[in-house]
Amino acid sequence: MKKDIQIAQEAIVEPIHKIAEKLKLSSDDWEPYGRNKAKLSDQLLTKLENKKNGKIILVTSINPTPAGEGKSTVTVGLGQAFNKLGKNAIVALREPSLGPVMGLKGGATGGGYAQVLPMEDINLHFTGDIHAITSANNALSAIIDNHIHQGNELNIDTRRVEWKRVIDMNDRSLREIVIGLGGTKQGIPREDGFAISVASEIMAILCLATNIDDLKARLAKIVIGYTYSGRPITAKHLQAEGALTLLLRDAMKPNLVQTIENTPAIIHGGPFANIAHGCNSIIATKTAAKLGDYVVTEAGFGADLGAEKYFNIKSRIGTIDTAAVVVVVTIRALKMHGGVQKGHLDTENLAGLADGMANLEKHINTIKAFQVPYIVTINQFPTDTIKETEFVQLWCEERDIDVAVTTVHADGGEGGVQLADKLIAKVEGSTKSYQPLYDLDDPLEEKMKIIAQTVYGAKDIELTKTAREQAAFFTEQGWGNLPICMAKTQYSLSDDPTLLGRPNGFTITIRELRASIGAGFIIALTGDVLTMPGLPSSPAALEMDVTSDGKAVGLF
Amino acid sequence: MKKDIQIAQEAIVEPIHKIAEKLKLSSDDWEPYGRNKAKLSDQLLTKLENKKNGKIILVTSINPTPAGEGKSTVTVGLGQAFNKLGKNAIVALREPSLGPVMGLKGGATGGGYAQVLPMEDINLHFTGDIHAITSANNALSAIIDNHIHQGNELNIDTRRVEWKRVIDMNDRSLREIVIGLGGTKQGIPREDGFAISVASEIMAILCLATNIDDLKARLAKIVIGYTYSGRPITAKHLQAEGALTLLLRDAMKPNLVQTIENTPAIIHGGPFANIAHGCNSIIATKTAAKLGDYVVTEAGFGADLGAEKYFNIKSRIGTIDTAAVVVVVTIRALKMHGGVQKGHLDTENLAGLADGMANLEKHINTIKAFQVPYIVTINQFPTDTIKETEFVQLWCEERDIDVAVTTVHADGGEGGVQLADKLIAKVEGSTKSYQPLYDLDDPLEEKMKIIAQTVYGAKDIELTKTAREQAAFFTEQGWGNLPICMAKTQYSLSDDPTLLGRPNGFTITIRELRASIGAGFIIALTGDVLTMPGLPSSPAALEMDVTSDGKAVGLF
Repeated sequence: MKKDIQIAQEAIVEPIHKIAEKLKLSSDDWEPYGRNKAKLSDQLLTKLENKKNGKIILVTSINPTPAGEGKSTVTVGLGQAFNKLGKNAIVALREPSLGPVMGLKGGATGGGYAQVLPMEDINLHFTGDIHAITSANNALSAIIDNHIHQGNELNIDTRRVEWKRVIDMNDRSLREIVIGLGGTKQGIPREDGFAISVASEIMAILCLATNIDDLKARLAKIVIGYTYSGRPITAKHLQAEGALTLLLRDAMKPNLVQTIENTPAIIHGGPFANIAHGCNSIIATKTAAKLGDYVVTEAGFGADLGAEKYFNIKSRIGTIDTAAVVVVVTIRALKMHGGVQKGHLDTENLAGLADGMANLEKHINTIKAFQVPYIVTINQFPTDTIKETEFVQLWCEERDIDVAVTTVHADGGEGGVQLADKLIAKVEGSTKSYQPLYDLDDPLEEKMKIIAQTVYGAKDIELTKTAREQAAFFTEQGWGNLPICMAKTQYSLSDDPTLLGRPNGFTITIRELRASIGAGFIIALTGDVLTMPGLPSSPAALEMDVTSDGKAVGLF
Repeated sequence: MKKDIQIAQEAIVEPIHKIAEKLKLSSDDWEPYGRNKAKLSDQLLTKLENKKNGKIILVTSINPTPAGEGKSTVTVGLGQAFNKLGKNAIVALREPSLGPVMGLKGGATGGGYAQVLPMEDINLHFTGDIHAITSANNALSAIIDNHIHQGNELNIDTRRVEWKRVIDMNDRSLREIVIGLGGTKQGIPREDGFAISVASEIMAILCLATNIDDLKARLAKIVIGYTYSGRPITAKHLQAEGALTLLLRDAMKPNLVQTIENTPAIIHGGPFANIAHGCNSIIATKTAAKLGDYVVTEAGFGADLGAEKYFNIKSRIGTIDTAAVVVVVTIRALKMHGGVQKGHLDTENLAGLADGMANLEKHINTIKAFQVPYIVTINQFPTDTIKETEFVQLWCEERDIDVAVTTVHADGGEGGVQLADKLIAKVEGSTKSYQPLYDLDDPLEEKMKIIAQTVYGAKDIELTKTAREQAAFFTEQGWGNLPICMAKTQYSLSDDPTLLGRPNGFTITIRELRASIGAGFIIALTGDVLTMPGLPSSPAALEMDVTSDGKAVGLF
């Protein structure tokens, strides 16, 4: 089987102006970045304001497992399939972070014959958006520590600076550090740490801002820490929002590329899906909806994290209507949820498969709760047996659930035609919007409880003393009407990553809250969340190379 | 008087394909980055191998003072002036670092009517080259600390890791830090620090590499530290050079932009001029020489640092011939060298001016030592009096030194025509090359002595015990035949920044040596060199902003 990078390097990539022409863009609407990438104007959305929106399809999945689900691959392949059927389709994806690319093999640009191109650029520096976020994040850090060093007029409590520095690298040594050492000319010593750039609140802000003024207003609201008397300090107190907006001016513009079958792809923003909302930018999704009849987009991790936040946070802030949801499963992943161990996934196991269906069932109930049409798709692996595939199909049919088999990794758009056909039938003429699961006016604790019970199937939630005090303080500060961003393990519906399938009767413990006031949500931490990955013992970077004529080697 | 940003925003910028056409580039030779920036192919130099080289003019200056010399402005204006005279000219400049832009007002893209455009982009993220250098530098750091964390097979002495992390920000709090805190899963605690990105050895490597294979070979040779038994550890030992090259693949391509008068400008690379060699990239300078009949380039700080390294390091590695040198002076700066204080520069002071000429005289002798034709130019300020200007002109004429007045800040290319005319007369027909000041085979200490005596006018040099031991060790390692990169204060010919004018009878103390084996030079530290600036009490960033329609405010 060919490697992804080989397929990508053999693909016939159209010059980006051809893709722009497909979308009927005028030369004012976009700027080239190299031969195969472009940035769309941030004024385009305003220009197209009165144009009818295309149908947005959200791709989500069951809880991810080491067996792989292939959500990005299905998203790309489905866009290609719509195009095969003569529809004007666009895929709207998240930008990959460079750090993990250096760590573990595995792309964030789809796979096989369902990839976005140029995959090498997209996986490395792309158009510099994440670098701009890093710069803006660290400019704010430098301004904070400089303010403290120059006399600390705002009385910032150096033990309570919550704004961390970031770097787009998997670098565990920077998780906990002490800065400002070396004497009076070197700043004030304090504990600090680096997160990976995509975990920056600024990434979430960029993805939720609807225009440049909204971006600036959100940046101004970032709470960087607290004074010695406990008053929140914002970026606005430090007069930093203007410079940060300037640093992000180009990063706010959505990026246009193409899939391996020359379907237009808009790739923009990529926040964490635990401490943030895990979706591409609102501006990109809305622009795609103005330019395409069908937009295929995805949300991070399983439906319990990604889809829940897509609806309750992103769609609410962006006033986005979603025509249908695709829930991706693989036979292998379902078997893992049914208790089958990783080494035994290649063997037919109908009993294990049957046990794993409960995980899918719960996610389907979640989508139903949002009142959006949906369809299940089996992302076929070569090791799946006919009986296994038929089992899942029958299971769905018995429950009146639409199901389609996709083989986009091997077959490109052709492998997604069954799914695309069924989706077209489902969404044509439908205009109904989604129903959020909670009201913003509900108290913070109530909102967490609704998510835990409706989406995770928890019996109840329990807040630690710290979390309870924080909820009271945040409400006092006027932040009580913000949506909740749950930071929970992606591997289980519960807060215990080892409980696969569909756990029952569990309680979700909310350990701590964090105020992401710029992004506009309250983070509820249900466990330890690592915002800085480490490199493995043999990092992928060690296999990378470039030939004399500039060809990438060993990327994936 | 209009601000630089206002002049820049009012300028008529040509689409970048027009500039490419002026240079007779085919569409394979370049890629657009937005509407007004492009990257030149890294294969272009090979393609043009047999084409005759244009004349390269190096712009240098006296020792910089707070009064300002305007070297970049003269460089840009001189390129424009050649164009006014019908010559096909290109300016080849260094890329500005983002960190200082956030700190102090003042551009690195020329000034007034002698600027390169788009100045906002160039001063912010430009085409991402410095971000790529940051990524490559910090990927190596992560690989080092991961290697130590995973068992330290190479036996790296954690007290002797000399490879620092970098960030493109003025952030004094990161100068001295402790990393790897927090327990066994967080890496190994050790002392570390961040330098600003342009101080990374990788910036110097990028600027000295002649092609992608040479880049990789140099990256492989980086010495990151030493084992517990004192053996040097290189990037190659860590298998990191392939990934680093991949991260720098696009950054190796020179950037094409234009001046305010639409003269082509190639802006590429910008290493420190103390711990590195302070010149734009070899690949950019050589490409410019293939594309233009006249190339105007500059080197950092005064001729004692910039020009010395331009000849002894850059020109030697790149086999670059320089047709002539321009030594920029301002009346104000000369008066400061003559002992006039900063508050009194607007008053005519012929005695002070006369005393300051000694600084110029020494730099002229340096250029003479390299055996390259030269010319002095007075970069006119509105406060200069006629008598002062005539004094400098007469001083030069009495010594048979060519001198020209330039007013490019106020008048653009027109203000540089006198200088350009004299240069054309000087260099037409000249084919003589420069003469380096020392042989590479000379012992390290001898090379330092030659620079100190010939260029600085020092009586002698003195190595500390540490430096002497390092010289012996480096020579033992086979590094003795590398050129020397002196890290000395830019403000004085001596190693004491307060000694302006032309100090005499001083000794240069070499405190410490550093091995920049990837870049290919030995750094000789003559004093404390700060590789991480801090922000001032009122950083420029606090005045920056963006309007709703995306216009930059407060950049300069």
